[in-house]
Amino acid sequence: MVAMAGITTGRFHLLGLDGMPAEELLSLLDEAEGFVAAAESGRSSDDCAGRIVANLLFEDSTRTRFSFTVAARRLGASTIDLTGAGSSVSKDETLLDTALNIEAMGVDMLVVRSRRAGAPHLIARSVRCAVINAGDGRHEHPTQAMLDILTLRRRWGELAGRTVLIVGDIANSRVARSNVHGLTTLGANVVLVGPPALVPATFTQIAAGPGRVTIGHDLDEALPRADAVMMLRIQLERHDEGSAIPPDYRRLFGLTVDRAARLRADVPIMHPGPMNRGVEIDSEVADDPDRSLIMEQVTNGVAVRMAVLRRAFG
Amino acid sequence: MVAMAGITTGRFHLLGLDGMPAEELLSLLDEAEGFVAAAESGRSSDDCAGRIVANLLFEDSTRTRFSFTVAARRLGASTIDLTGAGSSVSKDETLLDTALNIEAMGVDMLVVRSRRAGAPHLIARSVRCAVINAGDGRHEHPTQAMLDILTLRRRWGELAGRTVLIVGDIANSRVARSNVHGLTTLGANVVLVGPPALVPATFTQIAAGPGRVTIGHDLDEALPRADAVMMLRIQLERHDEGSAIPPDYRRLFGLTVDRAARLRADVPIMHPGPMNRGVEIDSEVADDPDRSLIMEQVTNGVAVRMAVLRRAFG
Amino acid sequence: MVAMAGITTGRFHLLGLDGMPAEELLSLLDEAEGFVAAAESGRSSDDCAGRIVANLLFEDSTRTRFSFTVAARRLGASTIDLTGAGSSVSKDETLLDTALNIEAMGVDMLVVRSRRAGAPHLIARSVRCAVINAGDGRHEHPTQAMLDILTLRRRWGELAGRTVLIVGDIANSRVARSNVHGLTTLGANVVLVGPPALVPATFTQIAAGPGRVTIGHDLDEALPRADAVMMLRIQLERHDEGSAIPPDYRRLFGLTVDRAARLRADVPIMHPGPMNRGVEIDSEVADDPDRSLIMEQVTNGVAVRMAVLRRAFG
Repeated sequence: MVAMAGITTGRFHLLGLDGMPAEELLSLLDEAEGFVAAAESGRSSDDCAGRIVANLLFEDSTRTRFSFTVAARRLGASTIDLTGAGSSVSKDETLLDTALNIEAMGVDMLVVRSRRAGAPHLIARSVRCAVINAGDGRHEHPTQAMLDILTLRRRWGELAGRTVLIVGDIANSRVARSNVHGLTTLGANVVLVGPPALVPATFTQIAAGPGRVTIGHDLDEALPRADAVMMLRIQLERHDEGSAIPPDYRRLFGLTVDRAARLRADVPIMHPGPMNRGVEIDSEVADDPDRSLIMEQVTNGVAVRMAVLRRAFG
Repeated sequence: MVAMAGITTGRFHLLGLDGMPAEELLSLLDEAEGFVAAAESGRSSDDCAGRIVANLLFEDSTRTRFSFTVAARRLGASTIDLTGAGSSVSKDETLLDTALNIEAMGVDMLVVRSRRAGAPHLIARSVRCAVINAGDGRHEHPTQAMLDILTLRRRWGELAGRTVLIVGDIANSRVARSNVHGLTTLGANVVLVGPPALVPATFTQIAAGPGRVTIGHDLDEALPRADAVMMLRIQLERHDEGSAIPPDYRRLFGLTVDRAARLRADVPIMHPGPMNRGVEIDSEVADDPDRSLIMEQVTNGVAVRMAVLRRAFG
Repeated sequence: MVAMAGITTGRFHLLGLDGMPAEELLSLLDEAEGFVAAAESGRSSDDCAGRIVANLLFEDSTRTRFSFTVAARRLGASTIDLTGAGSSVSKDETLLDTALNIEAMGVDMLVVRSRRAGAPHLIARSVRCAVINAGDGRHEHPTQAMLDILTLRRRWGELAGRTVLIVGDIANSRVARSNVHGLTTLGANVVLVGPPALVPATFTQIAAGPGRVTIGHDLDEALPRADAVMMLRIQLERHDEGSAIPPDYRRLFGLTVDRAARLRADVPIMHPGPMNRGVEIDSEVADDPDRSLIMEQVTNGVAVRMAVLRRAFG
């Protein structure tokens, strides 16, 4: 009975962090913390035994599929996967018909990833079961941002007043967009850094709550302000022609060993993966056991998805 | 210990509806009705816990795979999927060797879909475990016809004496063929309607039991006789060259808003999916909440497959 | 707490049979025997309930995937599959990053197949969870050799002093290599037979323990020495150009009906599958119910993998 992301249907959907109230977000993060602790102590649950989650990954993603699958199983639920290739989508059935059919089979939840912004919202308007956005085009990727925020909260306790640098191709990043919504909702400030063509000025206007969003194009200038640095993946596969990525990307915007050394010792480094080692981040930085939270992000992702699935199962 | 579809092996196989006695068909439909009721009241079962179903989908099908998977899980069983791509079939292993190998691993049942008519029959002759035909070439698709028949029986109670129009590319449709067998076995009459090249006269000879099969090439002439209208999918992907489908297919054989309006108000509309909206059926007709049984068909498909799996597990 | 295949990490890995002590191998075979007996009497287990195995099949293999999946389920565990296509591997993430990410999600075991020799070893050096080699390039395929050895042991009781012919493309065969290690460790002698270019002399030096390895290029000359004959698959897909396989392969190295007739009646015939019928083995030989152990190999493969998974779960 929770409205989220501007759509009220009497049913819990997680479509985005845009518009999610702080108390809602904090409540999910609290539940996720409980699952992190449960995993560490080897406790499991079968609260959701017999429930079936359909992973409708119109855009393929091994990590997201694995993470939701592990999350579902730890709750006693199971998953069925539709991936882009080899599906009846290739028979030109519409996205919506596919979703309606799968719901009609008695599936309890749809986890949707699509290249088309708004696809999960379209589906959520038509089905009765819960819908989780697992990434829609350049729009939102709310569970990724929630796991990033959980990771920072576990490090800091409190996000308010902290400053998070997000570095890379902001314009095309649903991860950046969801993080801006979630971080500012909880009072953190965000500095978006990247080449001018890839950091739209409009992002300063999407801040929510007390946090502020500023923009920069000089990573070296921005680094001293950082309480945490979040590197984005350069989507090399989307930039093969007429790319807006400068050839000297690493020199200008990569988190090199040299730059990492100039950060305060307590500033954590994050990346949503998969990484282009040696492009947006140097291997030595990514694997630094003291600074890098990248593996913790992955672990926390399962806990966040457990919390979201549990809430959505009702 | 049930012989079906002309093959007696001491083992239940579901290879087709051709030759299945009415009492056998009705008994499976009764069991499926029980599963529809159980699903509506949220009851589940683990009668078949530990059993493993292999989905051998040499021809890909998301819907069929999902439907059998949900059916298996609701019985407490699990599935393993082989789909066309990425399988050792690409190493030129024969269909039969693949099936024998999978059986030798201790799998309890094979659900087989293939572009080759007779493939499930070939496999059933060699394995000891149960085999379910999930569509073989242009031949049969028995669980699809059973779900269609279940849907009509839930609407009508009794099929005898009713007339079902099946419209489209009859010649290439395993759905039509299985429905003709099943519907006439239960005493319904079938009118097959489509372009002359796609409605073979031989279909009038495959009627079983009391039901009759007639053929027509003028949908508008046939419509007044219909107690139900079943539209077939135009297999656009099979007709790309030298197609027998007239360019004005929709005008001649599509279930348009206009045609639907001329049907009696109580005549239900069906489609096995996936639909080509605006080709064989208009969206307004497909989505008409009063007339369209299309989503019910999908729901009933899971119940039918549960009944078949349960019977085949023995 | 067992060191295997030369890598000691305080964690059970199964990376190869090279260097595995006889008592270790026999202990796993004994456990596998127990699982064969349990399967025959219909007993199952849920010793490993809640455990998750990731099948990281960077090189596709339906049979191996199915076999590990059935093995895991019979222990109450579940699997998640990554196959070559449609995975984030296509986003150029390194093998190792993929493995580390999947481990970080809380997966308990990685089953790794790769075209690159040493890939599972590389992964095992970095992860904390157990790693099973399911085939790495031309290097090792230990569970395949273990199932071959289990099959022979169930036939013979004892392997010491027996002579096993392995026939085919030895140079490129991980199956041959693992069998040489395992068979000689248990005291069997191995005769490797194939075209000179495909039977490297170095293989005589990899014998372990009491068993000896000899090499031959004339199958007819070697046959009388055989207590068992193991035919290898000709990897036609790897030999499409500039092939080292003579065009008269079947005549020279195929196990034809004629050759099989010259074997002693009690000499079993084996093949790891998938078979090229009519190339390295005639169908009449492969399907001979008295001589062929090919289906037993498949059945025993599940039992061997159950033993390995159980041991690795700890």
